[in-house]
Amino acid sequence: MSDQNPVFIPGPTNIPDRLRRAMQVQTRDHRAPDFVETLAPVLEGIKKVLNTTDGHVVTFPSTGTGGWEAAISNTLSPGDKVLVARYGMFSHRWIDLCQRHGLDVEIIETAWGAGAPADRFEEALRADVDHRIKAVLVTHNETATGVLSDIAAVRAAMRAADHPALLFVDAVSSLASVPFHMDEWGVDIVVSGSQKGFMLTTGMAILGVSPKALAAMETARLPRTFFDFRDMMGANAKGGFPYTPPLQLIYGMSESLNMLFEEGLDNVYARHHRLAEGVRRAVAAWGMKLVAQSPDLYSDTVSAIYVPDGFDSNKLTDHAFHAYGVSFGIGLGEMNGRAFRIGHLGSLTDVMVLSGLAAIEMAMADLNYPIRLGSGVAAAQEFFRQPARTAAKSAA
Amino acid sequence: MSDQNPVFIPGPTNIPDRLRRAMQVQTRDHRAPDFVETLAPVLEGIKKVLNTTDGHVVTFPSTGTGGWEAAISNTLSPGDKVLVARYGMFSHRWIDLCQRHGLDVEIIETAWGAGAPADRFEEALRADVDHRIKAVLVTHNETATGVLSDIAAVRAAMRAADHPALLFVDAVSSLASVPFHMDEWGVDIVVSGSQKGFMLTTGMAILGVSPKALAAMETARLPRTFFDFRDMMGANAKGGFPYTPPLQLIYGMSESLNMLFEEGLDNVYARHHRLAEGVRRAVAAWGMKLVAQSPDLYSDTVSAIYVPDGFDSNKLTDHAFHAYGVSFGIGLGEMNGRAFRIGHLGSLTDVMVLSGLAAIEMAMADLNYPIRLGSGVAAAQEFFRQPARTAAKSAA
Amino acid sequence: MSDQNPVFIPGPTNIPDRLRRAMQVQTRDHRAPDFVETLAPVLEGIKKVLNTTDGHVVTFPSTGTGGWEAAISNTLSPGDKVLVARYGMFSHRWIDLCQRHGLDVEIIETAWGAGAPADRFEEALRADVDHRIKAVLVTHNETATGVLSDIAAVRAAMRAADHPALLFVDAVSSLASVPFHMDEWGVDIVVSGSQKGFMLTTGMAILGVSPKALAAMETARLPRTFFDFRDMMGANAKGGFPYTPPLQLIYGMSESLNMLFEEGLDNVYARHHRLAEGVRRAVAAWGMKLVAQSPDLYSDTVSAIYVPDGFDSNKLTDHAFHAYGVSFGIGLGEMNGRAFRIGHLGSLTDVMVLSGLAAIEMAMADLNYPIRLGSGVAAAQEFFRQPARTAAKSAA
Amino acid sequence: MSDQNPVFIPGPTNIPDRLRRAMQVQTRDHRAPDFVETLAPVLEGIKKVLNTTDGHVVTFPSTGTGGWEAAISNTLSPGDKVLVARYGMFSHRWIDLCQRHGLDVEIIETAWGAGAPADRFEEALRADVDHRIKAVLVTHNETATGVLSDIAAVRAAMRAADHPALLFVDAVSSLASVPFHMDEWGVDIVVSGSQKGFMLTTGMAILGVSPKALAAMETARLPRTFFDFRDMMGANAKGGFPYTPPLQLIYGMSESLNMLFEEGLDNVYARHHRLAEGVRRAVAAWGMKLVAQSPDLYSDTVSAIYVPDGFDSNKLTDHAFHAYGVSFGIGLGEMNGRAFRIGHLGSLTDVMVLSGLAAIEMAMADLNYPIRLGSGVAAAQEFFRQPARTAAKSAA
Repeated sequence: MSDQNPVFIPGPTNIPDRLRRAMQVQTRDHRAPDFVETLAPVLEGIKKVLNTTDGHVVTFPSTGTGGWEAAISNTLSPGDKVLVARYGMFSHRWIDLCQRHGLDVEIIETAWGAGAPADRFEEALRADVDHRIKAVLVTHNETATGVLSDIAAVRAAMRAADHPALLFVDAVSSLASVPFHMDEWGVDIVVSGSQKGFMLTTGMAILGVSPKALAAMETARLPRTFFDFRDMMGANAKGGFPYTPPLQLIYGMSESLNMLFEEGLDNVYARHHRLAEGVRRAVAAWGMKLVAQSPDLYSDTVSAIYVPDGFDSNKLTDHAFHAYGVSFGIGLGEMNGRAFRIGHLGSLTDVMVLSGLAAIEMAMADLNYPIRLGSGVAAAQEFFRQPARTAAKSAA
Repeated sequence: MSDQNPVFIPGPTNIPDRLRRAMQVQTRDHRAPDFVETLAPVLEGIKKVLNTTDGHVVTFPSTGTGGWEAAISNTLSPGDKVLVARYGMFSHRWIDLCQRHGLDVEIIETAWGAGAPADRFEEALRADVDHRIKAVLVTHNETATGVLSDIAAVRAAMRAADHPALLFVDAVSSLASVPFHMDEWGVDIVVSGSQKGFMLTTGMAILGVSPKALAAMETARLPRTFFDFRDMMGANAKGGFPYTPPLQLIYGMSESLNMLFEEGLDNVYARHHRLAEGVRRAVAAWGMKLVAQSPDLYSDTVSAIYVPDGFDSNKLTDHAFHAYGVSFGIGLGEMNGRAFRIGHLGSLTDVMVLSGLAAIEMAMADLNYPIRLGSGVAAAQEFFRQPARTAAKSAA
Repeated sequence: MSDQNPVFIPGPTNIPDRLRRAMQVQTRDHRAPDFVETLAPVLEGIKKVLNTTDGHVVTFPSTGTGGWEAAISNTLSPGDKVLVARYGMFSHRWIDLCQRHGLDVEIIETAWGAGAPADRFEEALRADVDHRIKAVLVTHNETATGVLSDIAAVRAAMRAADHPALLFVDAVSSLASVPFHMDEWGVDIVVSGSQKGFMLTTGMAILGVSPKALAAMETARLPRTFFDFRDMMGANAKGGFPYTPPLQLIYGMSESLNMLFEEGLDNVYARHHRLAEGVRRAVAAWGMKLVAQSPDLYSDTVSAIYVPDGFDSNKLTDHAFHAYGVSFGIGLGEMNGRAFRIGHLGSLTDVMVLSGLAAIEMAMADLNYPIRLGSGVAAAQEFFRQPARTAAKSAA
Repeated sequence: MSDQNPVFIPGPTNIPDRLRRAMQVQTRDHRAPDFVETLAPVLEGIKKVLNTTDGHVVTFPSTGTGGWEAAISNTLSPGDKVLVARYGMFSHRWIDLCQRHGLDVEIIETAWGAGAPADRFEEALRADVDHRIKAVLVTHNETATGVLSDIAAVRAAMRAADHPALLFVDAVSSLASVPFHMDEWGVDIVVSGSQKGFMLTTGMAILGVSPKALAAMETARLPRTFFDFRDMMGANAKGGFPYTPPLQLIYGMSESLNMLFEEGLDNVYARHHRLAEGVRRAVAAWGMKLVAQSPDLYSDTVSAIYVPDGFDSNKLTDHAFHAYGVSFGIGLGEMNGRAFRIGHLGSLTDVMVLSGLAAIEMAMADLNYPIRLGSGVAAAQEFFRQPARTAAKSAA
């Protein structure tokens, strides 16, 4: 029966019926006008979500990890230096990828739960007088810790250091759920995927690429073919792909953008904030703590929550799944066993969120956590009903 | 976004993905072997749900109301007398249908919230010394009041009165959700539909017909063609329908029966009872009252709940829908404005139920009901987690 | 693999993907605004297909047979006289239905392959000086013989006889595929279904009802409840149904009307004519004969084709199904064994039609029919490519 | 209406309903047991299609091109020499990919229409006395020319030259449609995709990897992360993926394998051969020529067909699409303008093939090709009906 319970993993997210239908297209000729006429507006639509006018959008039949690989292999050469802060599982994995591609990675070790340290970036960039650092890599939303970093601050630090490095941002679990300002923030490459804020199945890496990053492509010597920007952009310009396109995902993305724009991006972001805040009220009511160190870092797409000392978060997520058929994110890396995660992004309602809170409360009670049943739900309810109460009053 | 919230109307119910897929069949030739090989096991499977070996199963592309009409038009003649107790909207409508078909309806007026009055049936039947009453009509589960009646008791009353009348039972909102014993209870015709316990779309009336009812068909003079048992049974015997069959629903029913038998009918009934009891715990925690007069009458498929004096249940269901995107059953007939209903039948999990309780709590709070947020949820959680807690302990 | 071959039964028809998706809606509250806002335009849209401004549209979760029953039970009383011509299986069945409902049926026996005999209707109506005939029943498109009758001529005959009878038309296999002029032809009730020209699954009877037919309802004494016009129209007016509506079919019908209006009804009719004519060219190339007696009677939705003497059409359709996985209509009633039928209605392309012709040619060759492989296909190709050839030339 | 016509591009192929349904799964937790229990049998099932017991199966959310990149980047180092024959667009592209990844590619230029030249491979390998050639790359089925090469012969040549190079095979458009014997042929890496013989949507690269290829991984210095075999195999062994898995495709592949094994691989291959032969009969009837130079090279999954001198194949495919809504493969590379292609792989019936032949015949006639309408169809019909005729006779 668990097919009907929502998932609360921080992606892939619950796919709304409208998008499930949109992806149910029979095979069509990808060289035919219908596809061509779908592709161009999709790329334009993604630009709106990125808030870019100068940037180009490139997609690959792949995942966010493939997007990362595309970002570096199209712009850098073996031995190039990059600067990265490690403060969670996904920044850690990006570092690993860079190292395996022969880059020289300067790592700023940062506490898990903290965000991108703009000041230490500035320091490192100032120290790099020869401008050996070719790119700064930042994870916008660290899915492992539920931390949203301030990209504008990182760019400000780069400007303060007067450093010409490129700025690459992992926005896999933030794009289309929280505001993103590619041009304003001076982002050179942003990487995302289809299965989070875009509410689709997994299988499409989505990148925004600045003119400066495109220029870097000219001298980049890391090998690439499948992930080559030039091949993809050249083919896209003629309405096609350099290989077989993921047709169903392109149609799905077309409808996803329709949904996002119909709701209004600002409303989408406000909804994410509202649902996230409801979850945080529940966490407070339980007397538990977020991994994110301070409110300015709280992610509106995922909350990582410390379990009390002496409890094992893996047992909790496992029990929630087996006893109640509800999936939550496990603690990753340093957080394994110490924290569990509630994903609250994509196509979600307050009522769905409440069902997740109710489920994890039962699981916690079963495992003798010191919480009161219904307390988190009530705190979230109290928060969620604010606008409705107002509406009810004004209607009275 | 409300497509993703479950519905809590007492039918049509939430369709599980597995059945949505099963109904997605392209047009096939209904005279071809594949259909023929599907139909016969479907009819056999329904017999298992009815607990009948002697009865025949007849289906029509129609609804429960069509099933009622089929029941009387195949067995009775204009002017025939039938005995019915009116204790809710659906018994009321069946009476209306009988009257419009020229039957002489003896009505036992019964309080809404009460069940079928076996003793008064017995009295009426004893008084009918000429055996003018040809059939006794009983609504097994009165969807308007959340009352489940005791069919065995009605049959016992008929036996006590030594009366030969047929026994017709409306099991639209009970079959496949609570136990039904057609043969043991001596039911002559039972009527149900596809969109409740069978978890399918609306469009199929389902009837079980006893040999005695079939015999009555010989002399029945009410006109019928579309709903003629003989045409349908004759065509079914050859693997077909007397007109175009609802192919997709037949395939859906085949898979619905697979799901029911895989879970096990006893487990299905236990699950319904468990979910219903959770709802009742919440109602008690809110300090509210069920329409059903006593625990022996509580329905495991739908709860009708009185709102406190001075409140309008229509405003509550309306507000829950508009503010939270969740549908509950309105109060019907005598209960309009006075009670709302929570449907808890079909493909449902405890987590889904909790989301419904959380939603209606918010709606009640918004409208200043004297309830405490989270109280009903907590009461249901406490109940739902019993088996899980036990499991967790034994696993420790 | 046969799921992928089109069917060539004259309904249910091949469901286009767009409509399959449209019907894939999860359960929604049928009392909620979304449904209400869908229903009214659906009823209006059907009026456009009927070409009526005065008429009302009524639908039932049922089939065409249920529609017939609704037509007579809402307007006539036991013993009322109706006039019908029998010239195929469906006119035959309608007669049977009338008789079983206690009507006095005056039957004009007509050759199978002929159409509605306007002159003999006129004769019979003139003879009915007391106006005992309450209704004239005509099958617009006799699916068994592939004959389309001239409804305007029947109405002209009624006018010529100055007879006040109602005019009921079975347009089950013609509506939305060939032009229908309800008001102009003075049709009082027209009956159709969802699974033919509307390209949906089976399960919705569709009726157009004139003000005069509505007036007849006042005195009609045939019993009805499920099929009661008044109940349905009353509930529809408030955005609902008198019982659970077939929600998915209503949404499907909404999209079906979108498709029909986007293509343009005139284009839809022209397409049906074009495809039908292609089939007829193939039949001529095979040296075979249509059951329809003359070109003015040829149906654009189904062709019934005599097999040569000494051949059994049942063996042909059976072999086509088993050897090639393609379904054709069998010969019904008098035509059983003597003719097979090719349905060419609904969502169909010339390429799909050619595949059907190629399949039946192989089946005929296998059974030693005196035909040349490819001959029918070539004749249809030659016809189908006319407009394309013109286009190709002008583009040259 | 063109959604309903089959496509005749050589992939992606027509998706059968059963697989469309199988891929319609809502988001599930990919760390949950249900997914884990699906993944392992999928990998095992693919091994059966590859005919390998020693090999490992690796999949990536990607396409065939990604599969090629995975093959070389996991086993080779910059500057390594590979031996390839170029005889079509896909062998050409693989060469390009190798060169862009810094490999030293020895190219055997071969006529388009010829197959892999085993004798010239042997010659080149014998000449390579220092064993600088690390891998021989062969395109099993060259989709651009409709040529199937003899992999066993290539392996025999390698053995004859006593050369230790690895053997990599592109089986993108052959696997699951024609026999493949990975172990027997000594294939070290075979690359395929989901959207051809497996009848699924695009988005999964499928590789079979021999123990020898795995050993080569130890010293391979081409960078890779997304496409790293070790990461994928390590994660798969624990039931997971190193990043978000393409859940819906994995479920789809599970059902695709069920379909293939239910039909029986030998029957699947026989069906492909039968359909291909029907197409070839049509080509002969038209008096046209295949690009494949000799019958032993004819591909059973795609036929590339020369248009007569003076005609432009692009106009033909364009006209077929616009006038009849049917997609055929265009001529690629050297064949552009000179040949068109009919894909006849995946889930296809003889009746579907006939519809394609009928469509292209009309298009050719429209453009004044010297062909007779129906001639190709008739030739294919005559061939297709052989088994049916036999069956019909024996049933007589």
